[in-house]
Amino acid sequence: MNIYADNAATTKMSENAINAMLPYMREVYGNPSSLYEIGQKAKEALEEFRSRAAAVLGCEAREIYFTSGGSEADNQAIVSAARSGEKKGKKHIISTAFEHHAVLHTLKKLEKEGFEVELLDVHSNGVVTADQVAKAIREDTALVTIMYANNEIGTVQPISEIGAVCREKGVLFHTDAVQAIGHVAVDIKRDNIDMLSLSAHKFHGPKGIGILYARKGIFLTNIIEGGAQERGKRAGTENLPAIAGMVVALEDATADLDGYAKKLTPLRDKLIAGLDEIPYSELNGDRDARLPGTVNFCFEGIEGESLLLLLDDKGVSASSGSACTSGSLDPSHVLLAIGRPHEVAHGSLRLSLSEDVTEEEIDYLVKSVKEVVEYLRNMSPFWRDLVTGKRPHVFAE
Amino acid sequence: MNIYADNAATTKMSENAINAMLPYMREVYGNPSSLYEIGQKAKEALEEFRSRAAAVLGCEAREIYFTSGGSEADNQAIVSAARSGEKKGKKHIISTAFEHHAVLHTLKKLEKEGFEVELLDVHSNGVVTADQVAKAIREDTALVTIMYANNEIGTVQPISEIGAVCREKGVLFHTDAVQAIGHVAVDIKRDNIDMLSLSAHKFHGPKGIGILYARKGIFLTNIIEGGAQERGKRAGTENLPAIAGMVVALEDATADLDGYAKKLTPLRDKLIAGLDEIPYSELNGDRDARLPGTVNFCFEGIEGESLLLLLDDKGVSASSGSACTSGSLDPSHVLLAIGRPHEVAHGSLRLSLSEDVTEEEIDYLVKSVKEVVEYLRNMSPFWRDLVTGKRPHVFAE
Repeated sequence: MNIYADNAATTKMSENAINAMLPYMREVYGNPSSLYEIGQKAKEALEEFRSRAAAVLGCEAREIYFTSGGSEADNQAIVSAARSGEKKGKKHIISTAFEHHAVLHTLKKLEKEGFEVELLDVHSNGVVTADQVAKAIREDTALVTIMYANNEIGTVQPISEIGAVCREKGVLFHTDAVQAIGHVAVDIKRDNIDMLSLSAHKFHGPKGIGILYARKGIFLTNIIEGGAQERGKRAGTENLPAIAGMVVALEDATADLDGYAKKLTPLRDKLIAGLDEIPYSELNGDRDARLPGTVNFCFEGIEGESLLLLLDDKGVSASSGSACTSGSLDPSHVLLAIGRPHEVAHGSLRLSLSEDVTEEEIDYLVKSVKEVVEYLRNMSPFWRDLVTGKRPHVFAE
Repeated sequence: MNIYADNAATTKMSENAINAMLPYMREVYGNPSSLYEIGQKAKEALEEFRSRAAAVLGCEAREIYFTSGGSEADNQAIVSAARSGEKKGKKHIISTAFEHHAVLHTLKKLEKEGFEVELLDVHSNGVVTADQVAKAIREDTALVTIMYANNEIGTVQPISEIGAVCREKGVLFHTDAVQAIGHVAVDIKRDNIDMLSLSAHKFHGPKGIGILYARKGIFLTNIIEGGAQERGKRAGTENLPAIAGMVVALEDATADLDGYAKKLTPLRDKLIAGLDEIPYSELNGDRDARLPGTVNFCFEGIEGESLLLLLDDKGVSASSGSACTSGSLDPSHVLLAIGRPHEVAHGSLRLSLSEDVTEEEIDYLVKSVKEVVEYLRNMSPFWRDLVTGKRPHVFAE
């Protein structure tokens, strides 16, 4: 059995999205900035896709800026808010410790420039509250940036409440919604979001394309300078084929989010229940406030990389956390943020399901993980120390 | 007859390039940072494409950084050189007045930070000399950035000589080679290039993908912060399908550059000769130091936009200059840089040929432009003033 269970890292493109791209490679290949017919056709298509994306997200077309992906959108949103803020003497930014590195590293850069970055506690359940945000907001707060759903553990934040707090206090609110869009219902107006980032390859669209939503009136700072594309805020010839693929994938992924949740949530919970049976293991992040398809566990006495390689042998594609930081020997900053000790944070497993996963596949996933965890523990001197009581257990049996 | 004569704006993707992309959308869709098989296969493909690109460009694989396109690569090269330079107290940058806006606007940003930007004269023929560069280099010069071939008028700069001067004087040399790659023979080592930008959609590859070459030892500053992709210098999930399409297109476009030049140059010269017959017109830029496929003319008494619309009616897709600045009412900064007066700079036409253009198509282009220029002049009060001697001519008959 082959199961791709790493949809949070990237998804397989849908045939719909691929087919949406091809006409803009083969026929309407013109540069949308050109005056002649196939340039103007490209321009019309570009604006039509912009409107369709806006309709899905609940905003206006002119509030959509196409970027090369979620990381670029995160960078531009945060830098823009910082530049606007500092003009008014506002150099305080609120975020959380378990954001994606596209957010955290941008904040780190701003810290070096003299910004004060306050990272809110995400608690052991991986959820920040609107009340925390309200208490942290100061006169000089330039930005609140909190992710919609965490990329490693899958917890969903109370974005609507956080957005309401920020709007009330007049503070800019950005959310990295890369993991949320296409998986939970996001509504920019309802959620009082000022800026939002998304990435197409997380919902069966193409890689290398994303959106920065910025509410009208927000002044964007360019990350990429040059031509006057995207209302002068993002230079570079518009990637129309990828935009077409993204918007079609976005429409498909959001067409029936209720049905998606209804189908996937019980399967996800069955997976959680199955893995819960493994002794000395724990689910990472809140059991309920979570994406319909993402599960992340820590297993005591396990080294994550071996777990992944043995699962791969069984046909299961999974990860220990973010693909963006694999290769690093440091434990996941997300797991440390929810209070997991180092030795447990190294033994994590993220399974992120696609909507076409079956009940048999869930059974196979549970069986495979159980087998591999048991096998690895039997080989592990570290595990022996736990069993013999030389080291204390972190989790209950 | 339908002729797409705006290949400098963007090209039609080759079927080879499209076919190279599809397997990475449908089968090997894994995130190259993942440990399991389809992630590792993606990683292997990524590194294979990197090596193949390096082989074409004459550099090492680890000197290739994949970006979202030429603009991003230009931005990153220039900002990186500036950041390295200022650490050593070097805040002088040499460039030219007719660079692409991705370069000029980045330089403008640095000027606001206190950098001194010196723009060399490109003369009436649109060619800068190595001697000018040598004379301009100072103790505190952080960077020389000069485009390989101009995007509007198609002139090719003596990059090999400029590179030699910079290397001798120990100054970093970047070239925006977006218009050159796939059209003239570029060799990074021979040309002593330290940094180079290219964009795939200018040589029948996909949009939204490019390369920044940076010689090993050069410290890059991130434009996009986040994950550790591209040796930590460019965050964001690698766009493997587009990389595949780009590298295949790059190999195809550079496989027989001699043959390309031999086929295209006489057709280009036939086009120039034909347009030369139009009275009160002049070729923009040097007649010989030019891309095999790019021709740019100024016609007195003509408004460029009308010219393009009427040519479009005749099935000819052409532009007045850069697609990136269309929509702007300002005359081309490139034409002003080579000394064209405002009133003539507004009447420009760029025809950029693809390699499959035929002799009949060249005849049709010449005939169409002649007809349209005559038609527009007959309607133009400005032209009447020139004919009646109320205004002086700029060009000879």
